[in-house]
Amino acid sequence: MREVAIIGAGLTKFGELWDKSFRDLFVEAGLKAIENAGVDHLDSMYVGTMSGGLFVGQEHIGSLMADYLGQTPIPATRVESACASSGVAFRMAFIEVASGLNDIVLAGGVEKMNDGADVTYALSTAADQEYEVYQGVTFPGLYAMIARAHMHHYGTTREQLAKVAVKNHYNGKRNPNAQFQMEVTVDQVLNSSMVADPLRLLDCSPVSDGASAVVLCPLDVAKKFTDTPVKVIGTGQASDSVALHSRDDLTYLAAVARSAEQAYKMAGVKPGDINVAEVHDCFTIAEICAMEALGFVERGQGGKAVDEGFNALDGKIPINTSGGLKSKGHPVGATGTAQIIEIFEQLCGTAGERQVKNARIGLAQNMGGSGGSSVVHIMEAVQ
Amino acid sequence: MREVAIIGAGLTKFGELWDKSFRDLFVEAGLKAIENAGVDHLDSMYVGTMSGGLFVGQEHIGSLMADYLGQTPIPATRVESACASSGVAFRMAFIEVASGLNDIVLAGGVEKMNDGADVTYALSTAADQEYEVYQGVTFPGLYAMIARAHMHHYGTTREQLAKVAVKNHYNGKRNPNAQFQMEVTVDQVLNSSMVADPLRLLDCSPVSDGASAVVLCPLDVAKKFTDTPVKVIGTGQASDSVALHSRDDLTYLAAVARSAEQAYKMAGVKPGDINVAEVHDCFTIAEICAMEALGFVERGQGGKAVDEGFNALDGKIPINTSGGLKSKGHPVGATGTAQIIEIFEQLCGTAGERQVKNARIGLAQNMGGSGGSSVVHIMEAVQ
Repeated sequence: MREVAIIGAGLTKFGELWDKSFRDLFVEAGLKAIENAGVDHLDSMYVGTMSGGLFVGQEHIGSLMADYLGQTPIPATRVESACASSGVAFRMAFIEVASGLNDIVLAGGVEKMNDGADVTYALSTAADQEYEVYQGVTFPGLYAMIARAHMHHYGTTREQLAKVAVKNHYNGKRNPNAQFQMEVTVDQVLNSSMVADPLRLLDCSPVSDGASAVVLCPLDVAKKFTDTPVKVIGTGQASDSVALHSRDDLTYLAAVARSAEQAYKMAGVKPGDINVAEVHDCFTIAEICAMEALGFVERGQGGKAVDEGFNALDGKIPINTSGGLKSKGHPVGATGTAQIIEIFEQLCGTAGERQVKNARIGLAQNMGGSGGSSVVHIMEAVQ
Repeated sequence: MREVAIIGAGLTKFGELWDKSFRDLFVEAGLKAIENAGVDHLDSMYVGTMSGGLFVGQEHIGSLMADYLGQTPIPATRVESACASSGVAFRMAFIEVASGLNDIVLAGGVEKMNDGADVTYALSTAADQEYEVYQGVTFPGLYAMIARAHMHHYGTTREQLAKVAVKNHYNGKRNPNAQFQMEVTVDQVLNSSMVADPLRLLDCSPVSDGASAVVLCPLDVAKKFTDTPVKVIGTGQASDSVALHSRDDLTYLAAVARSAEQAYKMAGVKPGDINVAEVHDCFTIAEICAMEALGFVERGQGGKAVDEGFNALDGKIPINTSGGLKSKGHPVGATGTAQIIEIFEQLCGTAGERQVKNARIGLAQNMGGSGGSSVVHIMEAVQ
């Protein structure tokens, strides 16, 4: 397999973008990525979208985006793994470049959630339709059950959950593309509207529109395009039962752990070697569970680690410096590549007010549903 | 890149399968493929589905199928390119094995169309939502325009279209998995109900449920599993504008031509070297246009070639020996891999009454929408 690098990135603002359509958003991110990379063509492209059908009545998304990006007749493939769709799209692009089949490959994602669709229903299709959705379960309900179990088994507190939101809003205020560029306090989180006990409004990522894209190429030609390519040193992907009730332990994200093990092994690094990470904080409890499954802290110790500032911008491993899904926004299909873009910028040293000092190795973890799929990438600065 | 072979295949019956669910169908095809290949595990899997969201309210399809197939925690990715979804899923599996990342990879597809969904609306999402669907266009309407243009430019006749259906039903009668195992006459086609002038009911592929799966591995280990592996010698994929009106020539499937050129080049063969082919005959006119775009006949000569029996079971290049989408059925996400399975069986010499004599090299062409995407694979018998 050839070594692979990221040479450019493009991101739209995330938010309620009523004046931009599904295709507008992807084209904006794609053009920015192509310009940022400085390439004069693409050989192939991948687009991650969770549910074009239910959100905007559009499938056949790969070709549509290739057309509007001015890239026909290149191969263009849409990939879906619920909220992990563009993390997986990135992995497909990595494999294609690594295989030697093609050289310049774009990977990205897009979701247009604010367009009149029944968002709660559309998102519920990431859960098990027959055994969860049909019975009335929603995602806040599923993550509330995970939170309750974590509190019961490990003594995790309501305040520790709130501190995840406070930290991510602190970072998001420093990200000009974030949906919510404002700080919140623990009291504001604890007094926000109840959504699904114990999760309140400020524990939940928002409904967002947005798109993200990066350009990959073989490492040995990356220096032709940029002085600061970022090498992809590890990839991992895993599945788990889509239905939460089928798992041995509600608090343990087995697919996250498995995908991380693969990525660490390929990269030849340990959790402690990671300088900065983006993890899938669709709800505050998800960041705590992800920290544990990624091996950053012991199982059950995620809440205490939050208390100690482990994941803060100046902590041992700064997590979700972008603001995370919580503050940056969560246009589901766009999230995976957006996480990778934050790590790319951190490793390039271009993250502005959010910059982590001496960041050399970064990790991005993107998850589908309540943990039914996970994809992890580890990247390293090349200078 | 490593050389790649197909070592096993599994197919459900196609049809209105009211007693089998979305997941039941894929599990049936997947288990058959695993058993047929004789492998004791999978390293990774790909599932092609056009619209799980609109047909059955289920996304997150890769992990769901991995779970019900008993394959968690392997990486499991759902791929979508409208009706070309599982042709593209097969290409993803090919690239993954070729790259060296994993060895034993399953590729398949599934669609459950008969489950109460608005099928015409769900299928229309393969067209351009803003510029075609919103204006009221449907797929029979789009292919009717292609047929009218072909008749106008090249003198293709109504009877020539009918003969495609007659030939495919002849083959389908000899396929125990086909939805319609019955022959039809030219008169029956010409007198069937009008759907979209000039296309009548018997020019159209049906609404179907079904699933298909194959197992791929590196060629150098394929003989451990089977005496008759089939080598994948060429792959090609291309995009075109999703909207039919954006194309220079309504009768020319540019994405098919482009994807075929790539596959021929990789395989080192010419159109005349192909012994048997499956092409995407969602409507009778599509088979005629595909024959031309694949280079089997000159542009505009597809109708005349049908008159001459070029594509018959005993013709120069037997096409759609399975019965094609027309007679075998067209569960959209399952079609691409099902075509590959027919070629696999032809090259293994196990196609029964449909067997083409001395078939050594076969081609499968799978298309999305009105030609907005196409994927072509060329396979060769290894003995």
